Amino acid sequence: MTATPIINTRLTLLLLTLGSTIFHVQGFAPQVSTTRLRKCFKSISMSPTDDLDIHVMVNGMPGPMATAAAEACLRKGLKLTPVAMTGPDVEPMTIMVYDPVSEKSSEVKLIPSTQRDDVAASIQGLKEACGEKNVLAIDYTHPSAVNSNADFYVEQKLPFVMGTTGGDREKLVDGVNAAKHFAVIAPNMAKQIVAMQAALEDLAKKYPGAFSSYTMACKESHQKTKADTSGTAKAVIDSLKELSDDDFTYDDIQMIRDDQEALDFGVPEDALKGHAFHRYTLTSADGSTQFALEHNVAGRTIYAEGTADAVKFLAERLQEGGEGKVYTMINVLESGALE
Amino acid sequence: MTATPIINTRLTLLLLTLGSTIFHVQGFAPQVSTTRLRKCFKSISMSPTDDLDIHVMVNGMPGPMATAAAEACLRKGLKLTPVAMTGPDVEPMTIMVYDPVSEKSSEVKLIPSTQRDDVAASIQGLKEACGEKNVLAIDYTHPSAVNSNADFYVEQKLPFVMGTTGGDREKLVDGVNAAKHFAVIAPNMAKQIVAMQAALEDLAKKYPGAFSSYTMACKESHQKTKADTSGTAKAVIDSLKELSDDDFTYDDIQMIRDDQEALDFGVPEDALKGHAFHRYTLTSADGSTQFALEHNVAGRTIYAEGTADAVKFLAERLQEGGEGKVYTMINVLESGALE
Repeated sequence: MTATPIINTRLTLLLLTLGSTIFHVQGFAPQVSTTRLRKCFKSISMSPTDDLDIHVMVNGMPGPMATAAAEACLRKGLKLTPVAMTGPDVEPMTIMVYDPVSEKSSEVKLIPSTQRDDVAASIQGLKEACGEKNVLAIDYTHPSAVNSNADFYVEQKLPFVMGTTGGDREKLVDGVNAAKHFAVIAPNMAKQIVAMQAALEDLAKKYPGAFSSYTMACKESHQKTKADTSGTAKAVIDSLKELSDDDFTYDDIQMIRDDQEALDFGVPEDALKGHAFHRYTLTSADGSTQFALEHNVAGRTIYAEGTADAVKFLAERLQEGGEGKVYTMINVLESGALE
Repeated sequence: MTATPIINTRLTLLLLTLGSTIFHVQGFAPQVSTTRLRKCFKSISMSPTDDLDIHVMVNGMPGPMATAAAEACLRKGLKLTPVAMTGPDVEPMTIMVYDPVSEKSSEVKLIPSTQRDDVAASIQGLKEACGEKNVLAIDYTHPSAVNSNADFYVEQKLPFVMGTTGGDREKLVDGVNAAKHFAVIAPNMAKQIVAMQAALEDLAKKYPGAFSSYTMACKESHQKTKADTSGTAKAVIDSLKELSDDDFTYDDIQMIRDDQEALDFGVPEDALKGHAFHRYTLTSADGSTQFALEHNVAGRTIYAEGTADAVKFLAERLQEGGEGKVYTMINVLESGALE
């Protein structure tokens, strides 16, 4: 939904010019990736000199979140490994990941997760070629694969960023910490939203009651397929309730799950199938003062770029050496203060 | 501008019923107070049992900011001293301060600041009657009076909240600290805006660069008579620039000083003569994500209530005893965590 028709056209023309047969494969709905899939396509080498020598195995393509993360890696100067894992039911294929912003592309062969030995051999080969500390993984697979994939990464000594939600989270974190393995594990990869939430939590802790006598309101719009209330909205509400003395509850959140209402709320038409728009207000008793906060996300870019930032953060920790452990997006955010 | 016609009518009816002659006096423009002035009007006693035994001398009435602060004091359970200072050129008069929210009122005799001996005698009499620690002052006078008034409060051992801007601020703060006098001195009494600014400063300090590659924008609307750019907007911009790498400057702030544009920006018609509306946005490079923050103030309530909160804070510090010093609105905000 963030892809503009121009970019798609340009990409299609590029690939058509190269004489390839193009397959449009639908991953997890909604499909928004600008990357197009193909089989048996010759590799195009694009390695600008400003690229980092960090190679990322993005597992879960051709799913749209994994694909968006792979594109963000290219955009942020990371390289993709030539081989990555895909779902057990996905036919082996080679895809071309293309980032329309940087115009970089990279070919990746997808191997079903059932063929772990092939993947393991590839990882070890890459490490030998590129250096032990220069190969990392991103996981955007399936909740049912979270724990077994993490075990596999630990076995392979492959540092990873877990973007997949679900699974046994406690076991996940405990296992990685016990193995002193390097990983970023976070339920929300949208770095800027995590920062905003942390700022509100800090504000509520430092100045509780600063907005007492103010009334709260919250309106959020998501694609029609999302049944439950926004988790981010709930977390923000928790902080706002510390600041105000309003007896607001989650039930008071106004949920929009209707296309026309979403459009009226400011959601762009091409984002109706995948968006997360939020507006919170705090209004004084006499109505003379109002504070408002909005965080409006269309598509997957913010999550994809946060994931790529997490990989870069993890690569830095690896270079520093020492023992591995589980990091969060707060650690990734804090690292900005150290640069 | 925050007063509704209903409240005005009710007030007017109340006063008319009481048989008083009502004078509408214009203070510093724009006049928004719901308090009406009168001369030689018999006192009406309204002292609900939940009132605090704190007496506040609000200096600077009938100026609208001082008057709004006096109303906020009544609203927050504080009492007004029967005598207060007014400008040297203002005719001595007695006014009725009326808070339409709590429906409390209190009569105050205004004495020109040239007659300091009369004011001093009144302060000492009040202290004897109500207790040394139960009499405080609020100052919303004139920039030219800031330093001499502060000296007078120190002389009279009268703790004060300085809401008046201007004067020699360094001399002001140093003098009060040297005298170990209790005071709240802050350039902005809008407690919630101070909290918001502090939260952004903290966020920028903890997670610099969290919004790198995001572009900034800022639009602010004030009454036509305000020539310069909003100081609050500049302070917020300073924090946002730590978070983003956009080369935004103060010149990029879009200033609205036009009635029609203000209305289009969401300013209510009755706030055109006195408002401070702000909207900041941070937008991702691809436009898919936007964060927005708004703080929209009509009239003086937020400043008036912040001032009354500062008085309550200062009264608590006095009760605790110890040495006096200059406090800020941040200290007032932090005290919420201690309650």
